[in-house]
Amino acid sequence: MKMITGVAKKDTLEIGEIDGAAMDGCEVKVNGAIHAIRDMGEVAFIILRKRDGLMQCVWEEGVSDFSLKDIHEASTVEFTGIVRPDERAPHGYEIRILALRILSQPAAPMPLTISRKRLNTSLEAKLNYRPIALRNINERAKFKIQEGITRGFRDFLYSQGFTEIHTPKLGAKSAEGGANLFRLEYFHRPAILQQSPQFYKQMMVGVYDRVFETAPVFRAEKHNTKRHLNEYTSLDFEIGYIDSFEDIMAMETGFLQYTMGLLAREYADELEILGIRKLPRTDEIPQVRFDVAKDMVAKKYDRQFRNPFDLEPEEELLIGKLFKEEYGADFVFVTHYPSRKRPFYAMDDPEDPTYTLSFDLLMGGLEITTGGQRIHDYQMLLDKIAARGMETEGMEHYLSAFKHGMPPHGGLGIGLERLTMRLIGEDNVREATLFPRDLSRLEP
Amino acid sequence: MKMITGVAKKDTLEIGEIDGAAMDGCEVKVNGAIHAIRDMGEVAFIILRKRDGLMQCVWEEGVSDFSLKDIHEASTVEFTGIVRPDERAPHGYEIRILALRILSQPAAPMPLTISRKRLNTSLEAKLNYRPIALRNINERAKFKIQEGITRGFRDFLYSQGFTEIHTPKLGAKSAEGGANLFRLEYFHRPAILQQSPQFYKQMMVGVYDRVFETAPVFRAEKHNTKRHLNEYTSLDFEIGYIDSFEDIMAMETGFLQYTMGLLAREYADELEILGIRKLPRTDEIPQVRFDVAKDMVAKKYDRQFRNPFDLEPEEELLIGKLFKEEYGADFVFVTHYPSRKRPFYAMDDPEDPTYTLSFDLLMGGLEITTGGQRIHDYQMLLDKIAARGMETEGMEHYLSAFKHGMPPHGGLGIGLERLTMRLIGEDNVREATLFPRDLSRLEP
Repeated sequence: MKMITGVAKKDTLEIGEIDGAAMDGCEVKVNGAIHAIRDMGEVAFIILRKRDGLMQCVWEEGVSDFSLKDIHEASTVEFTGIVRPDERAPHGYEIRILALRILSQPAAPMPLTISRKRLNTSLEAKLNYRPIALRNINERAKFKIQEGITRGFRDFLYSQGFTEIHTPKLGAKSAEGGANLFRLEYFHRPAILQQSPQFYKQMMVGVYDRVFETAPVFRAEKHNTKRHLNEYTSLDFEIGYIDSFEDIMAMETGFLQYTMGLLAREYADELEILGIRKLPRTDEIPQVRFDVAKDMVAKKYDRQFRNPFDLEPEEELLIGKLFKEEYGADFVFVTHYPSRKRPFYAMDDPEDPTYTLSFDLLMGGLEITTGGQRIHDYQMLLDKIAARGMETEGMEHYLSAFKHGMPPHGGLGIGLERLTMRLIGEDNVREATLFPRDLSRLEP
Repeated sequence: MKMITGVAKKDTLEIGEIDGAAMDGCEVKVNGAIHAIRDMGEVAFIILRKRDGLMQCVWEEGVSDFSLKDIHEASTVEFTGIVRPDERAPHGYEIRILALRILSQPAAPMPLTISRKRLNTSLEAKLNYRPIALRNINERAKFKIQEGITRGFRDFLYSQGFTEIHTPKLGAKSAEGGANLFRLEYFHRPAILQQSPQFYKQMMVGVYDRVFETAPVFRAEKHNTKRHLNEYTSLDFEIGYIDSFEDIMAMETGFLQYTMGLLAREYADELEILGIRKLPRTDEIPQVRFDVAKDMVAKKYDRQFRNPFDLEPEEELLIGKLFKEEYGADFVFVTHYPSRKRPFYAMDDPEDPTYTLSFDLLMGGLEITTGGQRIHDYQMLLDKIAARGMETEGMEHYLSAFKHGMPPHGGLGIGLERLTMRLIGEDNVREATLFPRDLSRLEP
């Protein structure tokens, strides 16, 4: 009987497996996609795109066993060649090609020039040619950073005793009601797509004390802005046995600290490609009340905003600017949002119940997180639902968790794409989304 | 300005933070939910449910500053007490309670007895009371094991140079077409929920060479069996630059080996709670051709199955039984499925194109994975689409990735709930799903 015993070492090498100095003169095999060909006549530089970066290979007439006409941009190949240290080459060495094995050939020339450092094209064109445009080194580096964020989130929370959960995206009723739900038919019954795992993660606090989820959420909002997506990845956590809603902000700060460390350690190549020389400050994050922040902005910038119950996007930008200027802060926790702008399950501040024990985290003046303490007392929850004129229908399971005892708790949801966008210095959230879904875009 | 500086140590301790012998006589604070109260008169054992297990606390008349009537099953509390080593107690110590602080009280008695080792109730009742039923130690341990699997999948693949991706679940057209799609309206346009990230992960192989995703998939299948869900978590990966489709099976075997190690190391408590004394064998996994496996089963068990192009569930069970009996194998790779039962993008076997370079992984006779090599050549893909009488409409973006060069590649999708179910020895996939979605269940 033939047996599969696990992963065997390949005879082709990755960039990080070749030490230019130590392997000087060694014959190696490497594979990858032809990223660019710079033909200088008797010599040509052939840049291979590999998963861990670009590799400089050198074709020489009479040395390499093939003609330059045999390969094209986007051919995938295996080269046999000799390692030669060269300080000018990307990783301190190049490969003098001896032999070529073609793995696959493209059927048509590339529709975009992807081999330049940055794609010189509109966002619209980038999105239309997404599977190709992402082959650009700068574009693909963005989503490695995104990976680092998700990974940092999970690894930090595992270390803090959290349990990862998978909650359903199809549901009978809305978690939080409202018009912003995608609706569908589920075996002849009406169903919705969850706009947040809120109810589920709260129920699971009664089971595991601390839970998190990293999963898609769906919002049928008719916003057409640089900040909104109709499907995005939400990094959610919920913590039981909190002493105060500040515990939630402390946990998020811990996640950010851990993640910046992870990015600096393991994503240095991508940070360099993206030209990110300095990661945002996370050693301390200012915490300011909603009403105080509003006043500070009004005074400093002499600006009045109409809505006393919420922050307008421009107001958030100014809060970000103010805290950057005065405290050198990249992040700001804005706390104590008015109760009327927060969902029914938000815990009102006992000192002034027109405000809640809630917060948003702004990064560079953009809201990237909404969180807060939740009501854990069954009767208080029922009272607030009644006071808002809401129905409990469809919330029976959610409410049952409270009826049968829930600890004080709270949590948050982080928009992965927004956090990525701010970190990589883009100003449109679509730049930080592999395949964005918005009012007009359902493909690719 | 008030600053948040990260996670501070709490003054309440977790189970693992208390060393019974070293802390003999120390005063500590602990919190948790009252899991059970065993009243013996002047003394009572109060079992606290904490995120890392159960903690035995002792109430004593005259020592503890409260009456037993003050607390109930499902109250959440903070105890101040004295550590006392006791070999009979769960972690080698108990807490003699001095003082009580109530954190929250339930509003009604529990609808289920959750404090027994195993819930003595039907699956139906468990699912109806899901948020409560999961508080049972045995129930919640199942989903810690599930966490370990997902975590093992990601960590192993990171170590193998994979990039994690997030692909959209809302789409304009089916990835693979067919009747098994949930349909919805997306801003006045028809949309579907993706039944697999197949097209996206293939396109992303052209970008990162190796990619994975752990995310929900949606199948509008009208199956009502113990093995089917209409929404489940799929562990997907796709590898470029493969030498053969065996590379994919080798990678899956590597994942299983790594994950069994992770479970043994970090989930020992949960394995013990669930009574799992032996993890399945992953050192070597037999690989057998589809047609050979069919013959072996027919001969050994004298059974004939009607469908020559696929395996029936009972046939899969017998293959599992046979390989367990003859090779001591818990897993079997069944390879070379007939081309007509595999999707158009499956790579046909050049030696006999009526078969494909594909496989299923059976665990205990249940299919937990489908995978295989994919066609990477643009013209070959177009030819196969044409030969099947299919349209390319709606696949333009997918096909463009191939038109512009793709390496040889392949991958797989693993049903997380099925793998969990087999590992924990359950026979209904709903037992391994936090909140299952099936033909009749859309709540909780």
